[in-house]
Amino acid sequence: MRPVSIIGIGCTKFGERWDSSLRDLIAETGIMAIEDAGVSGEEIDALYVGNMSAGRFVEQEHIGALIADCAGLSRLHIPSTRVEAACASGGLALRQAMLSVASGYQDIVIAAGVEKMTDVSSGAAADALAAAADREWECFLGATFPALYAMMARLHMRRYGTTQEELAEVAVKNHRHGSMNPLAQYRMEVTVDDVLSSPMVADPLHILDCSPITDGAAAVVLAPAERARRYAEVPIRIIGSAQASDTLALHDRRDLTTLDATVHAARKAYDQAGIAPSEIDLAEVHDCFTIAEILAIEDLGFFEKGAGGSAIEDGLTSLDGPLPINTSGGLKACGHPVGATGIKQAYEIVLQLRGEAGSRQVDDAEIGLAHNVGGSGGTAIVHILSR
Amino acid sequence: MRPVSIIGIGCTKFGERWDSSLRDLIAETGIMAIEDAGVSGEEIDALYVGNMSAGRFVEQEHIGALIADCAGLSRLHIPSTRVEAACASGGLALRQAMLSVASGYQDIVIAAGVEKMTDVSSGAAADALAAAADREWECFLGATFPALYAMMARLHMRRYGTTQEELAEVAVKNHRHGSMNPLAQYRMEVTVDDVLSSPMVADPLHILDCSPITDGAAAVVLAPAERARRYAEVPIRIIGSAQASDTLALHDRRDLTTLDATVHAARKAYDQAGIAPSEIDLAEVHDCFTIAEILAIEDLGFFEKGAGGSAIEDGLTSLDGPLPINTSGGLKACGHPVGATGIKQAYEIVLQLRGEAGSRQVDDAEIGLAHNVGGSGGTAIVHILSR
Repeated sequence: MRPVSIIGIGCTKFGERWDSSLRDLIAETGIMAIEDAGVSGEEIDALYVGNMSAGRFVEQEHIGALIADCAGLSRLHIPSTRVEAACASGGLALRQAMLSVASGYQDIVIAAGVEKMTDVSSGAAADALAAAADREWECFLGATFPALYAMMARLHMRRYGTTQEELAEVAVKNHRHGSMNPLAQYRMEVTVDDVLSSPMVADPLHILDCSPITDGAAAVVLAPAERARRYAEVPIRIIGSAQASDTLALHDRRDLTTLDATVHAARKAYDQAGIAPSEIDLAEVHDCFTIAEILAIEDLGFFEKGAGGSAIEDGLTSLDGPLPINTSGGLKACGHPVGATGIKQAYEIVLQLRGEAGSRQVDDAEIGLAHNVGGSGGTAIVHILSR
Repeated sequence: MRPVSIIGIGCTKFGERWDSSLRDLIAETGIMAIEDAGVSGEEIDALYVGNMSAGRFVEQEHIGALIADCAGLSRLHIPSTRVEAACASGGLALRQAMLSVASGYQDIVIAAGVEKMTDVSSGAAADALAAAADREWECFLGATFPALYAMMARLHMRRYGTTQEELAEVAVKNHRHGSMNPLAQYRMEVTVDDVLSSPMVADPLHILDCSPITDGAAAVVLAPAERARRYAEVPIRIIGSAQASDTLALHDRRDLTTLDATVHAARKAYDQAGIAPSEIDLAEVHDCFTIAEILAIEDLGFFEKGAGGSAIEDGLTSLDGPLPINTSGGLKACGHPVGATGIKQAYEIVLQLRGEAGSRQVDDAEIGLAHNVGGSGGTAIVHILSR
């Protein structure tokens, strides 16, 4: 397996993109990434795209052929593959694309992610998202997706003393970061009081504890590391890439306060990279709900189990703290177009490692981590990137 | 890239499986394939599953985690990936699994395919299938999926003199083959008159020119060729594997009577295998409609463009002819659970190359080809297998 680098990136504005269809979003981000890499269409060997549920959201499947078509590459007849792992679909596309280059089978490969979620009602969108959980054993029995994370939050609070204020601090921090990101869906700051007084969705999670419904797309271009400098001034190496699964339903898990899939994927990725969690300079983690960020920073080995809430409250994961988490604003404020999120995480890390993150730039960032979760933890994907 | 072999296979009965859910079908075929290979759960490194539209058919996404869970493998936390390319999702799963073993990244990998289509009305199923075509530029303008293939048929008839009787002969042959396959959905034989007097769906395609709506699942187990004999008495080598894309919509194509994606994928697969089309002993091709089989046997290089219809009428592709096509009964008679079809094709070829195909066994079969198409040709995937 040969080393792989990211040589180009693109990301659309996230939000309610009523001006743009699924294919518009793909074309917009694809062109950005290709231009950023400076590759020609003829050089591209393959495409991978992460998408959770275009079938439900816009009645379109066959998303691989669609993106090749939209990108103007269909006449080259290159392979184009859609992958799906619910909200981890983007991370999965990055991983499959990376493997195809690492194996030597392909050279220049695009990994993209897209979701167009606002063409249906919010009720229909919530139901489509519930397909990430176990439909037969969770949803048919009345569980909504926020309710599953609410159960994890309740047990974490009971077992470790995590408070609603600590949960709210995740939202406060990520909205502050998002206010500095021109691509973010929500650029307004919020306070702990705002979060705690916002409508309750699934106790203890208020609406400001939840990530929003978003349209958006992102893309990265990969190349063998040995050829990366031909295209990019600062190519970013993928030094770890791992994927793990767990039971689809929560009730079958060993422990509700740990995502074992995250633990297993992180362990493999750290091994591949030959580093310890303490060597990570910044991370984008999967904060679909505020509790999810607390679980993530514990399961990724940044903090002891149970210490995540206080770490956030103490500012350890803020932009000016020792380990900035979700400088993009995270899923919470930047938005969560589910299939695109995993690629947007890589986009943000690359931007930071290149030193191009503007007012939210992390000083001397050398190594970053991207952590993407499918459903309530049935899939987790971890990538470690290095300048 | 190291050589890869198929060491185990499984396939459920195809049909209206009202007794079985999506997860039942997965468990049934997974156990068959694992037992056939004689591998233990702990030896399995990864799973790939092809599924087109469980989101629409059974309101469930996150199919990778689901199959790991159903197969009892979730506690091992191995990576499990769903891929989608409409009706070519199964072939795509086989190809991605093959690449992961060929790269040396993984050793024992399962490629599965599944679709549970009969839990919704036939109208809803037809609409879900239309998501394989270009929703915005074809379906919104009134095209159904059969109508797209009907247009290809009309032009083929006009340009090459292909007749409705020749189209019907595809159905007659495939039903005859299917009558010998205990797993086939339709085991009754039909005549040319039956086909021509059956209800018209989209002129010139009658209902007996169309593949049915089907529940089913299939799985194969892959291993590095050098280790294959530890598991299988007759391991089957994958000597060619290729994937190509084309425009999603028909109106953007160079030619309506050729699937360029098939031509490109086949050319690459023959190159990899180092063989000519004339060296293929039998093939499973994508006969979603009778015209599709005629296009396929031309585009795969078995017959000149325009000569497919007469080749079938002359019996050249029958079980006792020089190049038996669709000995399983094809999509037409064996059934077409879309995500499973590409894996079922590989299952049938392996069965034949092992000499285990019973009354439909092809004598001295050494090399077989499997050809899987997504939509109206937006994706094509070709695998060549050898004893």
